[in-house]
Amino acid sequence: MAVKALWQCDRDGKMFTSKKEADAHDQMLELAEAISTAIEENVPGIESDKLDDIGRLIARNKDLFAKAFKGKASELANLDFAEPVDDNDKVAKLTKVG
Amino acid sequence: MAVKALWQCDRDGKMFTSKKEADAHDQMLELAEAISTAIEENVPGIESDKLDDIGRLIARNKDLFAKAFKGKASELANLDFAEPVDDNDKVAKLTKVG
Repeated sequence: MAVKALWQCDRDGKMFTSKKEADAHDQMLELAEAISTAIEENVPGIESDKLDDIGRLIARNKDLFAKAFKGKASELANLDFAEPVDDNDKVAKLTKVG
Repeated sequence: MAVKALWQCDRDGKMFTSKKEADAHDQMLELAEAISTAIEENVPGIESDKLDDIGRLIARNKDLFAKAFKGKASELANLDFAEPVDDNDKVAKLTKVG
């Protein structure tokens, strides 16, 4: 057995074996939070869990949204809301860490 | 008195004295609709009027969202939800057409 480096995202405790992936996940969550907050302030009356979901949906699919902003609104039909399967695998495998 | 050209947006009947502005408004509404639909499909249980408001909010502020997607999440603090004042003026002045 050897040791290996792990990177954990502060925001949700999720762990990654690659710093690049951990950074990307952290930035996605930061963006999701900012979006949820912006919507909450401008469209009152949406439940907190739905605001979170909307923020995550948009942040996770920001490239599709960016394309839609440039005139390809139909891109939004390709949205993917589910957590990527490999991420879930990673979390499952990393139940016991330091 | 002379005649002048007006452009009306099919989607909401709003009228403009500039074709460029009318086109921009139409594209904004198209994008807003696509966003509302995408959110409705992926985050069930949000009321229809709130979905419309979210779509409009994002479409109207797409440039700020695009900046946020590039790492400046704080840009979203500057969102503007209200209809631009000059647009409202135009509608008010154009009550009788055709």
